[in-house]
Amino acid sequence: MAGGALICTIGNQQFKIDQGTDFNALAKQVPVPPKVAAAKNDPKISKASISGPRKEYWIQAEPVTWNIMPKRRDQMIGQSVAKKVGRTKGEAYAYRLYEPNFTRPLGPATIPGPLLDATVGDTLVVHFRNAVPIPVTMHPHGVFYSNEMDGAYKGQWTDPGGFVQRGRTFTYVWECPETSLGTWMYHDHGPFETTGIPKGLFGPLVVRDPDEPLPDREYFLGFHSFLPGVVAPNISTIYAINGRGYTGNTPNLTAKVGDDVAMHIYGIDDFFHTFHLHGHRWQNPDGTMEDNRTFGPGDSFRIRWIEENPGRWLYHCHVFSHLHAGMSGWYLVE
Amino acid sequence: MAGGALICTIGNQQFKIDQGTDFNALAKQVPVPPKVAAAKNDPKISKASISGPRKEYWIQAEPVTWNIMPKRRDQMIGQSVAKKVGRTKGEAYAYRLYEPNFTRPLGPATIPGPLLDATVGDTLVVHFRNAVPIPVTMHPHGVFYSNEMDGAYKGQWTDPGGFVQRGRTFTYVWECPETSLGTWMYHDHGPFETTGIPKGLFGPLVVRDPDEPLPDREYFLGFHSFLPGVVAPNISTIYAINGRGYTGNTPNLTAKVGDDVAMHIYGIDDFFHTFHLHGHRWQNPDGTMEDNRTFGPGDSFRIRWIEENPGRWLYHCHVFSHLHAGMSGWYLVE
Amino acid sequence: MAGGALICTIGNQQFKIDQGTDFNALAKQVPVPPKVAAAKNDPKISKASISGPRKEYWIQAEPVTWNIMPKRRDQMIGQSVAKKVGRTKGEAYAYRLYEPNFTRPLGPATIPGPLLDATVGDTLVVHFRNAVPIPVTMHPHGVFYSNEMDGAYKGQWTDPGGFVQRGRTFTYVWECPETSLGTWMYHDHGPFETTGIPKGLFGPLVVRDPDEPLPDREYFLGFHSFLPGVVAPNISTIYAINGRGYTGNTPNLTAKVGDDVAMHIYGIDDFFHTFHLHGHRWQNPDGTMEDNRTFGPGDSFRIRWIEENPGRWLYHCHVFSHLHAGMSGWYLVE
Repeated sequence: MAGGALICTIGNQQFKIDQGTDFNALAKQVPVPPKVAAAKNDPKISKASISGPRKEYWIQAEPVTWNIMPKRRDQMIGQSVAKKVGRTKGEAYAYRLYEPNFTRPLGPATIPGPLLDATVGDTLVVHFRNAVPIPVTMHPHGVFYSNEMDGAYKGQWTDPGGFVQRGRTFTYVWECPETSLGTWMYHDHGPFETTGIPKGLFGPLVVRDPDEPLPDREYFLGFHSFLPGVVAPNISTIYAINGRGYTGNTPNLTAKVGDDVAMHIYGIDDFFHTFHLHGHRWQNPDGTMEDNRTFGPGDSFRIRWIEENPGRWLYHCHVFSHLHAGMSGWYLVE
Repeated sequence: MAGGALICTIGNQQFKIDQGTDFNALAKQVPVPPKVAAAKNDPKISKASISGPRKEYWIQAEPVTWNIMPKRRDQMIGQSVAKKVGRTKGEAYAYRLYEPNFTRPLGPATIPGPLLDATVGDTLVVHFRNAVPIPVTMHPHGVFYSNEMDGAYKGQWTDPGGFVQRGRTFTYVWECPETSLGTWMYHDHGPFETTGIPKGLFGPLVVRDPDEPLPDREYFLGFHSFLPGVVAPNISTIYAINGRGYTGNTPNLTAKVGDDVAMHIYGIDDFFHTFHLHGHRWQNPDGTMEDNRTFGPGDSFRIRWIEENPGRWLYHCHVFSHLHAGMSGWYLVE
Repeated sequence: MAGGALICTIGNQQFKIDQGTDFNALAKQVPVPPKVAAAKNDPKISKASISGPRKEYWIQAEPVTWNIMPKRRDQMIGQSVAKKVGRTKGEAYAYRLYEPNFTRPLGPATIPGPLLDATVGDTLVVHFRNAVPIPVTMHPHGVFYSNEMDGAYKGQWTDPGGFVQRGRTFTYVWECPETSLGTWMYHDHGPFETTGIPKGLFGPLVVRDPDEPLPDREYFLGFHSFLPGVVAPNISTIYAINGRGYTGNTPNLTAKVGDDVAMHIYGIDDFFHTFHLHGHRWQNPDGTMEDNRTFGPGDSFRIRWIEENPGRWLYHCHVFSHLHAGMSGWYLVE
């Protein structure tokens, strides 16, 4: 499916996304759902059952000037790709972590958003505030939540958490039972999700096993893409990892021999990808060994090994047209 | 691969499918294979070994006027999509269930066709009659069958079951040994399968474990697509579930808290999809938890859980351009 | 991603591949990386640790005149597809097996290259010589190797094994520990891999369990594609298995009832495929039964069963536009 077709479906409007889009006007074209209109700004979280230890986050969705390829070079091929790709800076959206009660941001706004880090038994309490023009949300994968904590736009049945307008807040309460063990993600699922997600509104979520030691190093890698016009108006399509495209711009992962290393991979665009890592294999839960895995949008998985192989290694999507349009990076082992 | 290219390969003819196609003329362009010409109308099923209890079906492939989106609205976004999508009614094909000896249809012709429901040890005996202009077949996945029960067109080596002409019948005999346990599908595999399948000739097949209790509720969901011209001449591509596109048109699944719920998913078009269900996770055979799974054409799987989460939930393909072109629905839990 | 876009990324040059491409000139557009320039022609393999029994191969990458569809017919549909597909002969590249010290070729150059056949504990020693105009390499999946044995171009960090120029040799040393058990592949990963791989530079690699009996019959099947211009200038895209497209051209696999049969499948193009085999199911490591599996570029797996079903069976990709553009073949069981 071409990217253009995707973008055309935003809120059922037939428009072409580009820098000229008036998102304030766009936001007004979807009516406020009745349950949202009737709700207080931020419903008491006592409505939701909270059991177990709380993990509490304050997160704001906000615009950010983002450069998809700040170094302008692809270190994998040792050349500048600036001319081929086009100007890679533009307006993105990001989930940004704040101190309690939104007093101060905790570091810069980034794509992906902050890791939501829980252990089996925890309850995630996420205070969300929207500072982008269109209504957006946070929809989690993997965790347990009651229907009104779904964070999904559902037309006339939309709950307040599924349509958080600019300037409004909503507190999501998500539980982490044993059946939520694993690596997951969260992302915008509002009425304009086909704008919000490709502009950067997604992030990783993990529910850990309390009886499993933490790895020495771990990385969360979101595989996604920047279509022309969504963030940067005149780029060619960039297949990205964690908001950046092309080796040297994507995360430089590091480890030392002897480290217990985990990588958490998830896909959140319109395409299917694979994860391949040079010089390494990992064991699947079914006992087989693997060094390449197919995954689709919404899929997530964790791989883990004891590091034994020093060197400069490539990790990348093995779809060649994705690999050669940005979807690769370095894993540096000392 | 664009849909147009796919359709162009039908029977190796270079033509563009639309309402003007003369299927009677088309059918004559593929010669009757020698073994088909030599065969009696319906070979005695005594030719095939039948062991174990028989599960017997009478199924006819027939034209049906089909509306892909009868409600003209997408309840997920709370808006009419009629103008965007185009006129969604046209001529489809369907496998229709009949009473023994084709005396009377058992309900209306539907997409997908009827569930073929067997238990390990059964033998499926499927009396098939073709009432569409082109030769079509039934080809099953997962079950055991001898070569002549394959239901596949194979050029000069085609058996009678692989080329059932209009007005002819064929009885398929398919066995269900232990190695056939699981969720599968059946579909047209005649010389014009790239017309027959996208027009609706597919359906679910299950081989159950006799020692496993039946679920309280179960749903069989075929993920497929309607390309412009195949059923409705001027639609945009619709990504469909069980013959319908867009939430409120696709199946409204229901369950109650406490129910043992199973969903059987299969893919039968030219695309890769994922299955995602809000508010729920399921356990894989390898022990991992999942709430989203990638699958391709011909793949099938079952997921199952004890229902504990009331509400109005979305199930959908997580490929955004599929999700926003019809591939979603409601799962309503009381 | 369209094939055109893929080819345009070769070595970051904006050119359109066709028969007119001057590959000698192309090769000169990527500078020799510093470590390659500094290296002796073929570094002593004593640099690498060799433990366990050696499995030694001499392999040359060389041009080969290749016919993708020598029979000009698709036996699956019983018709000539010559006119539809176009002239299918052109210049490909192949990994060709030689006698020790490259004294004589062992048979013709083929797509895919020779099987690299190891058992857990072995060390693969592969003497590689390049006889094509562009620098190419051998990059293996699944095995253990030190960083300089990676066979991957990495810009300024490229080791000699990652940039083997025309007329040069390099000896790769790859170990096969227990964690390398399984079916894998190898392929070009030089600076022009998006030319080298689609022109034919890939092959299978297996690391066997010493305690598992060998199958009676086994087949290694690479699923890939020929885009217009890469090998044959004016073809339509052909979805191929082991270098050939369309049933009767792709491998005719054979077995006898009672045989212990293994098939090793891998994907090495820009697309996702499925493997489907008529009349058969196999058991997955997690215990489930399957007759169709999705896989992506770089994925590989083995399936195995005791043959019990005689006949003429189709194996194919279940993506219909791939199936009907060459990706199918016969499995003939006596």
